[in-house]
Amino acid sequence: MSLLVVGSVAFDSVKTPFGEAEEILGGSATYFSTAASYFTEVNLVAVVGEDFPSQHVNFLKSRGINTDGLEKQDGKTFRWKGEYGYQLNEAQTLETHLNVFESFKPLLPQSYRDSEGVFLANINPELQTDVLNQVTSPKIIACDTMNFWISGKRDALLKTLEHVDILIINDGEARQLAMEANLVKAARIIRSYGPKHLIIKRGEYGALMFNSQSIFAAPAYPLENVFDPTGAGDSFAGGFMGYLLNTRNFSESNMRQAVIFGSVMASFVVEDFSLNRIKTLDYNEIHNRYREFKQLTHFEESAEIFRQ
Amino acid sequence: MSLLVVGSVAFDSVKTPFGEAEEILGGSATYFSTAASYFTEVNLVAVVGEDFPSQHVNFLKSRGINTDGLEKQDGKTFRWKGEYGYQLNEAQTLETHLNVFESFKPLLPQSYRDSEGVFLANINPELQTDVLNQVTSPKIIACDTMNFWISGKRDALLKTLEHVDILIINDGEARQLAMEANLVKAARIIRSYGPKHLIIKRGEYGALMFNSQSIFAAPAYPLENVFDPTGAGDSFAGGFMGYLLNTRNFSESNMRQAVIFGSVMASFVVEDFSLNRIKTLDYNEIHNRYREFKQLTHFEESAEIFRQ
Repeated sequence: MSLLVVGSVAFDSVKTPFGEAEEILGGSATYFSTAASYFTEVNLVAVVGEDFPSQHVNFLKSRGINTDGLEKQDGKTFRWKGEYGYQLNEAQTLETHLNVFESFKPLLPQSYRDSEGVFLANINPELQTDVLNQVTSPKIIACDTMNFWISGKRDALLKTLEHVDILIINDGEARQLAMEANLVKAARIIRSYGPKHLIIKRGEYGALMFNSQSIFAAPAYPLENVFDPTGAGDSFAGGFMGYLLNTRNFSESNMRQAVIFGSVMASFVVEDFSLNRIKTLDYNEIHNRYREFKQLTHFEESAEIFRQ
Repeated sequence: MSLLVVGSVAFDSVKTPFGEAEEILGGSATYFSTAASYFTEVNLVAVVGEDFPSQHVNFLKSRGINTDGLEKQDGKTFRWKGEYGYQLNEAQTLETHLNVFESFKPLLPQSYRDSEGVFLANINPELQTDVLNQVTSPKIIACDTMNFWISGKRDALLKTLEHVDILIINDGEARQLAMEANLVKAARIIRSYGPKHLIIKRGEYGALMFNSQSIFAAPAYPLENVFDPTGAGDSFAGGFMGYLLNTRNFSESNMRQAVIFGSVMASFVVEDFSLNRIKTLDYNEIHNRYREFKQLTHFEESAEIFRQ
């Protein structure tokens, strides 16, 4: 099953306590498609400038990602510059230059319109709806957003959410969107906006998935060397959606496994700058880390204990 | 198996966004013993003032807690006053009056000296060692501490830790004690000080247990109504140690179950002020919540997935 993603392809300049790198390949759609490419066909929709080198396009193609929807426009590619402190939980954005991304109007190639899965990365919710309108009969739609759209384009965002099956956001965004501090209550409010499933990303603390039947809590993998957290959330979404499309099974139990595959991909991406760590993963590494998540969380059913 | 705890018995005045209460029963040893009392015999060591009402002593006795080691001294009982914001993660301490606790020199009743489990709640590490020296042949020793002792009595604390099997602290304390920001590295450093097992409490994010064989990640129970987080950490420790003493099994697998029973007790205590919620739990509630933790974290082993 093919998986469409619309989002950013960018050059990032990143500083962490462990090193810095200039103008490295980044962007939500880049991280998402690379992570998803281990599981399914990906149709990438994004825009870059004339300065975007063919080596990056070739890399995406080498991962079997369809780049027919990667528009090249006059101007420069989106650039982001950020810095992380020792806590590594949230980047301080130093510069954002939207460049060609500013006037981006995603137009889907004909061959993308029958995509069965859709991931709307964090872009203007009006564009998210535009993209959805161009997909003929998607089987599953997931979406991300951020504080900027929640406060600035709330109505457009709520309109998008009516058509979304799975919303994947962080805890601060969930509280802001629901206007409720308690996450259990916030989840109920957000699910009333449309998404049957809500996944709340909590960085080093893992993820929570809420649906009508249950709550699922997944930890993050306790890494000894977190090098650069950039792209963790989009790689999570890529592993999650990639696995769902691979298995064509949207049951609650399979969605839990998808959350773990998402967590696996996120745990790899933060081990190095840019996509370096997930450029050339082999399936043994992916499956082994999945098993490590199982080990990390497993405990036995309990016999009923009474005071002796 | 009997479980000795030394710590504070106090009057707390607490303000949360949901209400406030004055001079309610609190203290680390109170929360610990009440939680543990569902699982095993508890020998309580603490000090109170003349103002401590017999109704509170009677409550502890009603839970089958041995209060022979609860000294009554001239003076007033330890008092703490704190306030929580909407995040409910950390209290702002407004007032601390040590009162009779200031000159506390724990002397164990003869009948306590053969206790098989020991929990040294957060007190001066010199007193922790004094207490350990009075126990004949403990089978398992756990301990808590705080930033005040880590910075102010580091050498005494390291001396205590040489004799401790399980250290139970929060993430900030672990980073401070190890002088290392990364928790995986911090755990290795702390375990080199003596404790074979390190449990890091992360409040609403659950707990991590590190030992030589593995890391175990347990979530917190996602509660819709967290009323007052006071005592959550000590109730966690009480459920954890109580279960271990009940089962007399210190295997890694059983310690994972103990972490879940600790999390169960902590999830109850925060639902109301003081010990109100855990005063009269029944075993069905405890076992049901354990099962809910299993549901919350369960996912299937994965078939090996490749791109199709």
